[in-house]
Amino acid sequence: MDIDRFLSDRSRLMKASEIRELLKWVNENVISFGGGMPDPSSFPVKEIMEITRDVLSAKAEKALQYGTTGGILELKEELAKFMGKVGIKINGPEDIIITVGSQEALDIIGRLFINPGDYIITESPTYLAALQAFRIYGPRMVGIPMDSEGVRVDLLEEAVRKIINDGGKLKFIYVVPTGQNPTGITMSDERRKALLDVASRYDLAIVEDDPYGYIYFGDDEPPARLKAMDSEGRVIYLSTFSKIAAPGLRLGWVAASSEVIRWFELAKQSIDLHTSTLNQYIAAELLRRGVIEKNIPRTKEIYRSKRDLMLQALSEYMPSGVSWTRPSAGMFIWLTTPERIDTGEMLGTAIKKYGVAYVPGKSFYPNEERHNDMRLNFTYPTPQQIFEGIKRLALVIAEYLNA
Amino acid sequence: MDIDRFLSDRSRLMKASEIRELLKWVNENVISFGGGMPDPSSFPVKEIMEITRDVLSAKAEKALQYGTTGGILELKEELAKFMGKVGIKINGPEDIIITVGSQEALDIIGRLFINPGDYIITESPTYLAALQAFRIYGPRMVGIPMDSEGVRVDLLEEAVRKIINDGGKLKFIYVVPTGQNPTGITMSDERRKALLDVASRYDLAIVEDDPYGYIYFGDDEPPARLKAMDSEGRVIYLSTFSKIAAPGLRLGWVAASSEVIRWFELAKQSIDLHTSTLNQYIAAELLRRGVIEKNIPRTKEIYRSKRDLMLQALSEYMPSGVSWTRPSAGMFIWLTTPERIDTGEMLGTAIKKYGVAYVPGKSFYPNEERHNDMRLNFTYPTPQQIFEGIKRLALVIAEYLNA
Repeated sequence: MDIDRFLSDRSRLMKASEIRELLKWVNENVISFGGGMPDPSSFPVKEIMEITRDVLSAKAEKALQYGTTGGILELKEELAKFMGKVGIKINGPEDIIITVGSQEALDIIGRLFINPGDYIITESPTYLAALQAFRIYGPRMVGIPMDSEGVRVDLLEEAVRKIINDGGKLKFIYVVPTGQNPTGITMSDERRKALLDVASRYDLAIVEDDPYGYIYFGDDEPPARLKAMDSEGRVIYLSTFSKIAAPGLRLGWVAASSEVIRWFELAKQSIDLHTSTLNQYIAAELLRRGVIEKNIPRTKEIYRSKRDLMLQALSEYMPSGVSWTRPSAGMFIWLTTPERIDTGEMLGTAIKKYGVAYVPGKSFYPNEERHNDMRLNFTYPTPQQIFEGIKRLALVIAEYLNA
Repeated sequence: MDIDRFLSDRSRLMKASEIRELLKWVNENVISFGGGMPDPSSFPVKEIMEITRDVLSAKAEKALQYGTTGGILELKEELAKFMGKVGIKINGPEDIIITVGSQEALDIIGRLFINPGDYIITESPTYLAALQAFRIYGPRMVGIPMDSEGVRVDLLEEAVRKIINDGGKLKFIYVVPTGQNPTGITMSDERRKALLDVASRYDLAIVEDDPYGYIYFGDDEPPARLKAMDSEGRVIYLSTFSKIAAPGLRLGWVAASSEVIRWFELAKQSIDLHTSTLNQYIAAELLRRGVIEKNIPRTKEIYRSKRDLMLQALSEYMPSGVSWTRPSAGMFIWLTTPERIDTGEMLGTAIKKYGVAYVPGKSFYPNEERHNDMRLNFTYPTPQQIFEGIKRLALVIAEYLNA
């Protein structure tokens, strides 16, 4: 049976990532900075074991049964307290929905809001998997350049005005304000205020994707969440247990007005009925018993020391003309080579000849053609791999610069 | 902020179910046959506890980490063996994807195959949540009547011919062949052969949704899966751990050609990256250690005895003119009242005056207007509740018949 003739037009928008194809070459002799995985030593394994035992002893008939689409009340109540500590105030559990990682929230956002031809605005570059999630709903994506303080809100306002003048429908602005994926940049307080101000003046919705905010490891205080500064209910806030506990639980959440959450529930019901009840009970206990609060400083320390190592290795080995970011949060350093290098083209050599892998920058741009950046993950590789890998990366870049 | 003006056209197709609204009236004084939950005493709780401990002791760094979109190899290999025992032969793990319950598979099917205006064929009545999942992709749905042997394949072939003659695009035929939800009907062997024959002659794809096949509790041998009879790769097979282990794990799977599975992986990647790794390892061990195989006869026994109880209560209490199915699999009995009763209209009285709830039949029909059926779940209520609830239901029906 020929499956192609049954496919929807939508399916043609789903592309196997070229990067994934190349990363298949990665074997045990290759040091990979290509992934986006946390350090497994940050997982609270013993506590998850104890909690699972306790949950199954006390309420297996609930924890193994179907649950409501929005998520279990215990978890939503714990999350309300957890977010409260960083200044996010919500009205109650009806302002939260539990999702299968934040990825599911991104898909639901596309599903709920995007008609083909609608506009959305993102940072440029931005999170690759958000682009993938939104893309299949057919939006026009406008990427706004960033500098060291985050997205250029002045350029963003210009873009908003242009879209409105052209009669376009702007559905939302998507940002990862803290430890952005892929750049590692954290948006400054001023920019956050300016962004909310633009949203207010033009009556816009903001999607704040905050996977890394709770693991801020900079020396200064982390800036406030957009959601905490939002007095007009414009911010749809996304976060995840993947970095504060463990990705394998596949748990994320959304905080927004109860009206928005009801739409999320309607959408989620037909996607997967609800998120794993067992995992939700585990997460509720991880919060209630303070495991996550105790785990966060430990995780910050791991991330900070690995970031420092990578920064040290970079300054030690990189040829001149190469620059990179110094993240205070997140899992990535963004490296920019001189213009004459195409990092996508170079990846094959990096993997096969030098035994080092990264993600070329190109795929992170919604609608620009930039070819000389790359994303480096510093949380998963070991300290030794970080040093050795950056050394190898410097060699391949040097080879291409001298070619 | 007014959220309505940001919503997509697609969102207007997501409807809060009226039934859910009514079922909100259900409290501890109401006996509900409205849900679709398994008996919690069928969950292998102790074994899940032991397995979780063992998995987290042996490989927490994998079980709590991100995984591949298709699912973990261990689970796919166990599933290949498990399906092999009921005659389903696949080429290897590349023919399987692990999903968040089968509901996610239903959504992915809609996403991959349905363009607005395409045709799909379903049984009539059919699984409500499949209708919801497909509906947001804008198909034209054609429901084919059933009799006690399952879907009327003669009528189905007529419908196929009509669609083709009209120049329509028929994307797939969706069936729940064993212990169908909502009717409890199991499609006969002959009908299965006839269905595959039609699919072959007209070059069609079949979606076989098989949540209940492994808990067949009839006295005869269960009929072969369509997938086991399919020599042309036409069948996309869906099943779930919700009935053979526990729904709270939110684990389902799809078996199809590797080409189809690759499309599923592409779609799933942007929906939620992957299914919970921890839960997948738990399920792999439940299969490997034979827990599921041991649990199935026990679960069958629970289901069979509760079905028998409900059948007994129905014949004892129901007024004449009321008829119902006698399922050999699944979790539901389908009850039909005389035409002058509208079960949707009657539900309010049933809940508020008599303290009994059910799901009115109307929502299970893709495009018919039938108002005098209802779905009764017999797996979740206790034996006492089954007797008392059916007694109450007979009273409300009698009241409406005499009105």
